[in-house]
Amino acid sequence: MPPNKEGAGGRDDRSVTGKLFTLLSVFSPRRTVLTLSEIAHRSGLAVTTVHRLVGELVERGILERDSDRRYRIGLALFEIAALAPRGPGLREVALPYMEDLYEVTRENVQLGVRAEDEVVFVERIAGRASVGVRTRLGGRFPMPPTGLGLVLLAHAPSEVRQRVLEAPLRRFTPHTLTDPERVRSVLSDVRRDGFAISDRQVTSDALSVAAPVFGGSGEVVAALSVVLRFGSVRPSSLAPAVRMAARGISRALTAPVTSSETTRPD
Amino acid sequence: MPPNKEGAGGRDDRSVTGKLFTLLSVFSPRRTVLTLSEIAHRSGLAVTTVHRLVGELVERGILERDSDRRYRIGLALFEIAALAPRGPGLREVALPYMEDLYEVTRENVQLGVRAEDEVVFVERIAGRASVGVRTRLGGRFPMPPTGLGLVLLAHAPSEVRQRVLEAPLRRFTPHTLTDPERVRSVLSDVRRDGFAISDRQVTSDALSVAAPVFGGSGEVVAALSVVLRFGSVRPSSLAPAVRMAARGISRALTAPVTSSETTRPD
Repeated sequence: MPPNKEGAGGRDDRSVTGKLFTLLSVFSPRRTVLTLSEIAHRSGLAVTTVHRLVGELVERGILERDSDRRYRIGLALFEIAALAPRGPGLREVALPYMEDLYEVTRENVQLGVRAEDEVVFVERIAGRASVGVRTRLGGRFPMPPTGLGLVLLAHAPSEVRQRVLEAPLRRFTPHTLTDPERVRSVLSDVRRDGFAISDRQVTSDALSVAAPVFGGSGEVVAALSVVLRFGSVRPSSLAPAVRMAARGISRALTAPVTSSETTRPD
Repeated sequence: MPPNKEGAGGRDDRSVTGKLFTLLSVFSPRRTVLTLSEIAHRSGLAVTTVHRLVGELVERGILERDSDRRYRIGLALFEIAALAPRGPGLREVALPYMEDLYEVTRENVQLGVRAEDEVVFVERIAGRASVGVRTRLGGRFPMPPTGLGLVLLAHAPSEVRQRVLEAPLRRFTPHTLTDPERVRSVLSDVRRDGFAISDRQVTSDALSVAAPVFGGSGEVVAALSVVLRFGSVRPSSLAPAVRMAARGISRALTAPVTSSETTRPD
């Protein structure tokens, strides 16, 4: 979102909701802690507006202030976001199957969903010994070069596929597919085979094997992947395990909800 | 928060920020999907206000609408909340140590922080074979009966301890400590020993061993615990492993940030 600079005493006709989420969106993985004036500068909102809104957000725990008068995203926002069915909700259901897959493969296991034209990472189990993966939960990435993304894109509405393949395809390694026709053919294989292999498209030492997670109406709601070091295992040999785990999650998602809603934290 | 019912055409003088978060707070673990009129009813906000705000929130992906015109917390909120240093930020740092602890113990491993007078669960690794724990990420629980909570309460500002121990202490099992003086003495042991054991205080079949995670100025910023079935292991024998993992997280939290900010999702 481009900053919409207000003049001194100028009027900002964006809605308060717009201002609030503009303000919250200035925080980023590289800027998790900001001063009031940094927030004002990066949001393009007037300092007085920022001052008032930040005060209201701190009062509700949506932002937290540290001892240096710097602000960060607060726990109250995390508590609300934990209810997102496509985020932590999905993760709760998927976690046991992801753990099984990790036990069996000892490789990075990832779960993602589509948000518009990108994949958002919802969960990850990273093996210490497995190839380095710096996925950030809640982070976004283009779909075509990742296993998760290939699965999500293969099953996305055709207008999404059209839009993604008409945009330039970013190259990360010499192996990244940048020809839309080639990607289109891979996506058709993904639909036929029930899994995707993305071979060294993001980094030259890693590849991923991914399978779709289905919702109640047979639509693809998420994708599950294993990321492994290139040359360590024949990737297609992992496909059955990944598909099994993805089917397990699909079944759990569509199972009737049990009444075991008791909380037993300790 | 009690519903603040507006009369027909009545005026609601809460700020827009207040209304927005009142609206978002009607979603709960039992009510993750709501219709517009349910949101209005539960928030006590006028239907017209709810209609307008929900529209703005959907436009930003903060809420998502399903095909039955019901609303749920959206992925965009999860993406912002993923930046919370005391939530997912802490989790990112802690996860490898939690995985090690899980490998060694094969028991539930949990991470929590204090939010006002309660513990909020930030991460959990649950063993399939371990005792059932239904902790919900982002969920809250009273501090005194849990291992995590005992650690956090032992190191909380004295006014927090005062407030918590002056309120009635809820009983979950015959083992739950409900005498404030008894809890006070346990908290003093926790500070002396460097770990807490909560014995069947939440359910009669489980206990937990917890240790503090320290921030840069030596303050306790989180707690780490292992939850195990009563009678399976002598809990104090797990204390060294839990303390080791908690110290690992403390060290990682205060280590200078490396420049390995590259993203390699797949």
